[in-house]
Amino acid sequence: MPEAPVRGDPAVVTGGAGAIGSVLVAALASDGTPVRVIDNLSSGRKETLAPGIAAGRVRLTVADLRTPEAYAREFEGAGSVWHLAANPDIRRGTDDPTLDLEHGTVAAFHVLEAARRADVKELYFSSSSVVYGFPDRFPTPEEYGPLLPQSLYGASKLAAEGLFSAYAHCYGQRAFLFRFANIIGAGITHGVIFDFFEKLARDPTRLEVLGDGRQAKSYLRTEECVDAMRFVGAHARDTVNVYNLGTADQVGVRGIAEEVVRVHGGRARIEYTGGAQGWVGDIPRQLLAIDKIGRLGWQPKRSSREAVTETIQDLARARGLA
Amino acid sequence: MPEAPVRGDPAVVTGGAGAIGSVLVAALASDGTPVRVIDNLSSGRKETLAPGIAAGRVRLTVADLRTPEAYAREFEGAGSVWHLAANPDIRRGTDDPTLDLEHGTVAAFHVLEAARRADVKELYFSSSSVVYGFPDRFPTPEEYGPLLPQSLYGASKLAAEGLFSAYAHCYGQRAFLFRFANIIGAGITHGVIFDFFEKLARDPTRLEVLGDGRQAKSYLRTEECVDAMRFVGAHARDTVNVYNLGTADQVGVRGIAEEVVRVHGGRARIEYTGGAQGWVGDIPRQLLAIDKIGRLGWQPKRSSREAVTETIQDLARARGLA
Repeated sequence: MPEAPVRGDPAVVTGGAGAIGSVLVAALASDGTPVRVIDNLSSGRKETLAPGIAAGRVRLTVADLRTPEAYAREFEGAGSVWHLAANPDIRRGTDDPTLDLEHGTVAAFHVLEAARRADVKELYFSSSSVVYGFPDRFPTPEEYGPLLPQSLYGASKLAAEGLFSAYAHCYGQRAFLFRFANIIGAGITHGVIFDFFEKLARDPTRLEVLGDGRQAKSYLRTEECVDAMRFVGAHARDTVNVYNLGTADQVGVRGIAEEVVRVHGGRARIEYTGGAQGWVGDIPRQLLAIDKIGRLGWQPKRSSREAVTETIQDLARARGLA
Repeated sequence: MPEAPVRGDPAVVTGGAGAIGSVLVAALASDGTPVRVIDNLSSGRKETLAPGIAAGRVRLTVADLRTPEAYAREFEGAGSVWHLAANPDIRRGTDDPTLDLEHGTVAAFHVLEAARRADVKELYFSSSSVVYGFPDRFPTPEEYGPLLPQSLYGASKLAAEGLFSAYAHCYGQRAFLFRFANIIGAGITHGVIFDFFEKLARDPTRLEVLGDGRQAKSYLRTEECVDAMRFVGAHARDTVNVYNLGTADQVGVRGIAEEVVRVHGGRARIEYTGGAQGWVGDIPRQLLAIDKIGRLGWQPKRSSREAVTETIQDLARARGLA
């Protein structure tokens, strides 16, 4: 952790031990912002925060967001809250509909209440391209409507967007809503790339791919995602600021499967389960318009293709495959 | 209650004792549909259902929607649920943010869960024009975005829309989402017309109007609103069907104030509190595009102006003023 001077009010980061959160925490801390992480460690890992904690820049509170009494004090004196915590598994939410209500919508409400009571002025939220449902317009701009999510996860993201907007308008705060493409990087613990590595670790002879492999989506690296969120926070001027975060290109699932099989030695047979949708709630095609953040002055450095290749290399290295 | 033959599966109506719900219940029952009303009677009145209950067409369960065990059996064998129950007071939701979360979002979730468990196929929801926030496009079409509500009430309507959409897609149901203009009729117990009558009953010498009186909105009669919802249910064909319900014209608050003062004898002095927004969360201008429902084949019979005049006469008559 670089020895940057402490500056600015503390930032609260929920889900700060997760794949995106830990990168955000490191970036804030290295700029000298004291960071207070709230994470239930259900998918985040404490070790990712160790350097910041050791340097005295980062404090971790292990708590469930539905019990605000366990963490409300972390909001006192804070200038911003970055609410990244969520159920990371869209499919689980279909089997257990309470999951995204509780860990998505209700958790967001409690975070906003804690922020309101402590008069925290800047509210950042990791929304998702899934709020667009199956859009009929590509690339999909921020003003696309109606927003008809296909999954309970998507419904909880839309619900939280509405809450952030209402809080900003009613209580003199400002909100920054980011609709993420697929965010990938060395620390990911879910999503198609991670899943393929897991499947091949269990059975190196075959790789089952959900759907027909034609699903095509955009991918953005965690570092770039964090950079974009901070850029928007510094430059956007509305009470509520909604921005897509993605790249201008797409990568198909078939290509990802083939590349992951290749780094595993190329022996596995790829088997497609068939159907345009990989699973109930899956969005087969995703391409976000990134003109709005472009006009603000931010561009992704890597294409989706480059982000995918880099992440496959990261995961291969971590598993001793490269 | 006409002696129509019983036909079709029963319909569940939440908030069925309210101003809109009671009109819907009477319409369904007079067509021969058995109706099961769930209402906590917080603003609805049991008497509105008396004819249907007496005729054996309507059953009332008094229950809080957050305790599904108290009413889940009402969904067994039902063909549709019409979820109209809500906190009717937008302003109260700003003072107590838990109100719309609990009675809006969480209540909708429990209703949808009850419908899923009983395999109820048609899901109707009374959303609102407030999901559009302060739109910059008039008349505002259903595909307007982004949806940035200005109130906790608006956030709960948006959250429920997302839940209805996700349930329809995930569990083989169909959803009908109605974005209401101001719905008015003889039974109303809130809103600007009702409030003006209440204020003049308390003090006939002056009428305080929140804002500058230039707020202009559309008004649709409860009977027409119910007719439109049933028309869409019979004719729309998508998995999720979103329709604005309103008229092509607007009425200003100033004109309503003057007309209500006139039916009270014209003596009261009208005092404006000032400001474009009547209160935090108020939407000063509302005009919904009604082309989509027009293309389906439905048109309002009354203009907003006619609906307002008729409703003022209804309320005046009920209070012995006309």
